[in-house]
Amino acid sequence: MQEELRFVHGGNVYEPTADGEPWLDFSANINPLGLSPRVKEALAAHLDGVIHYPDPAMRELRTALSAYYGRAPGDFILGNGAAELFYLYAFVTRPKRVLLPVPAFSEYERAAHAAGAAVSYSPLEEREGFEPDLIFLAEEARRVEADCIVIGNPNNPTGTLVEREAIADLARELLPLGTQLVVDESFLDFREDEARFTVRQERLENLFLVRSLTKFFAIPGLRLGFAIGSPALLARMEAAKDVWNVNVLAQAAGVAALADTAYQVESRAFIAGEKARLAQALAALHGVTVFPPSVNFILVKLAPAERAERLVKYLRARHILVRDCQHYPGLAPGFLRLAVRTRAENEALLAAWRDFDRMDP
Amino acid sequence: MQEELRFVHGGNVYEPTADGEPWLDFSANINPLGLSPRVKEALAAHLDGVIHYPDPAMRELRTALSAYYGRAPGDFILGNGAAELFYLYAFVTRPKRVLLPVPAFSEYERAAHAAGAAVSYSPLEEREGFEPDLIFLAEEARRVEADCIVIGNPNNPTGTLVEREAIADLARELLPLGTQLVVDESFLDFREDEARFTVRQERLENLFLVRSLTKFFAIPGLRLGFAIGSPALLARMEAAKDVWNVNVLAQAAGVAALADTAYQVESRAFIAGEKARLAQALAALHGVTVFPPSVNFILVKLAPAERAERLVKYLRARHILVRDCQHYPGLAPGFLRLAVRTRAENEALLAAWRDFDRMDP
Repeated sequence: MQEELRFVHGGNVYEPTADGEPWLDFSANINPLGLSPRVKEALAAHLDGVIHYPDPAMRELRTALSAYYGRAPGDFILGNGAAELFYLYAFVTRPKRVLLPVPAFSEYERAAHAAGAAVSYSPLEEREGFEPDLIFLAEEARRVEADCIVIGNPNNPTGTLVEREAIADLARELLPLGTQLVVDESFLDFREDEARFTVRQERLENLFLVRSLTKFFAIPGLRLGFAIGSPALLARMEAAKDVWNVNVLAQAAGVAALADTAYQVESRAFIAGEKARLAQALAALHGVTVFPPSVNFILVKLAPAERAERLVKYLRARHILVRDCQHYPGLAPGFLRLAVRTRAENEALLAAWRDFDRMDP
Repeated sequence: MQEELRFVHGGNVYEPTADGEPWLDFSANINPLGLSPRVKEALAAHLDGVIHYPDPAMRELRTALSAYYGRAPGDFILGNGAAELFYLYAFVTRPKRVLLPVPAFSEYERAAHAAGAAVSYSPLEEREGFEPDLIFLAEEARRVEADCIVIGNPNNPTGTLVEREAIADLARELLPLGTQLVVDESFLDFREDEARFTVRQERLENLFLVRSLTKFFAIPGLRLGFAIGSPALLARMEAAKDVWNVNVLAQAAGVAALADTAYQVESRAFIAGEKARLAQALAALHGVTVFPPSVNFILVKLAPAERAERLVKYLRARHILVRDCQHYPGLAPGFLRLAVRTRAENEALLAAWRDFDRMDP
């Protein structure tokens, strides 16, 4: 049971609410601006295209990715969501031991287990604001003989960010150990200063970069992600999946989304402002510690810790879903993760939370 | 190069034609009636749903599958197309040796290789109409110490069918050898007498049944397939993939398609008649041997064999794609596979072919 809870995710809006009202979902970290009008148009225009297999070469999507991310069209492997790529990577590389700074996105561990790997945790320290210590991480990799380290940048759920040079240095440090470094940048598109943090221009043999397009472009239901890595690894991964893994509509949505500069600019500006505003309002609530957000989600801690579970239940009864982090390895009880939503939705969350505070002070 | 050609598929309508005209595609085996109006409505109605993750429990889709195929909702594992399930199966079971009656759908072999398996061919005999000899196959499995046999029922590209009881007998025969039997029934929905052939009601520990919903329901661009197998195997497979692998629109399309009885009845009746009509017309052409079709595709052989490649080129220049089978292991040169399309499209193919016969007698 503990095992299962560890791998439960946010964002399950399919469970009906008690009274049939829709969920207000702060548990899934999706762009609150919703679907770009350009993406919606592209989907409608391509509906009839589902009678054909997806383009196995993914020509248009690769061209769009190339223009947006500044790598050659052949430098990408496309995934049915970023999640698929973690599993595919694990099955192809078959690491014996994976080292995970925790807390972390639970799919890293699940994919490692699926491929038969042992998993070692390297706990991030709450008193350090969960900032990773990359020098210590390299030592740990040596000590536990890790074949692979997976880090999120920013890390989910802590929001901590590491600069590009530091990640590249870590990869270089790990290279003589034969340790691969997997970097998950699935939320970096939300940053106006993305270039400071991304390793997408690096060409280090042991570096594998994964990104999702579903969070920033609000298309988690379509599934779309990609990875960049050594040509040899990418060729092995391409051979280990069918060529139609990215559906026709996800390909069309990706092309339209990457071309919609107005949506991208507006989304980044909105999140930059609203995450700070929401973080400040949360910090003013009773017994709440806010960990500074970097993108579109915020980690908070409630004191006393028992209040967190009561708050989650209280909010659920008001159709508000938040991410209860009590089963994350590496987190003490009392942590919640909240998506940054629209101004009105964030206000609704704060209002319900203040009601809870009055009821359960 | 030979290796690559072996895994090239039909249905690539994304390569532009010389003059920009659309392709007439006989190379992909998709229901010629196209998208059911119910499915198209469901897609349009669910477009806004792509801002949410897919339902990880796939409740509605499982309920629909259960009602249609007569198994409990929990008896299915859902795939991003049937193809994903072959790879997932191979990665989870890691067979050392896979025995393949050939010619066969090339993804069986590609998935086996991806998981590190050696592949042994068991050639189907042209002079027997490619009918599989299941007693011989069991002997071969013993001889080569196969961990797994994969058979298509009907087999693609030969169209041969095996009755349900014979498949179940083979599975029982293989059980004491520790050999798994994978049966691909991806085209069986096209048969009015599907119940004679399917093993979907069997509960044999070493039987793994895969089906696609993309051919019969004309949604290959959405990706949707499922499998039925032992509960232990399905649990291992579920743990080896992310829970969002079937996108929101594929789930919605599946639910709508399985409920659209009128489309199903019309499709089966149309294919039953049109496959016979097209087969008869093809048999009347110069130097063509037709292998009796069972579903929506027809295997033919041209004599002399060199004419096949010339015909493929001739038809391409007229925007007609057919499946050139020259790189299929287990097939001599000269074979082509043709989808059964609409009456008008089939007539267009026949007209172009007759023109070719006059030019290249």
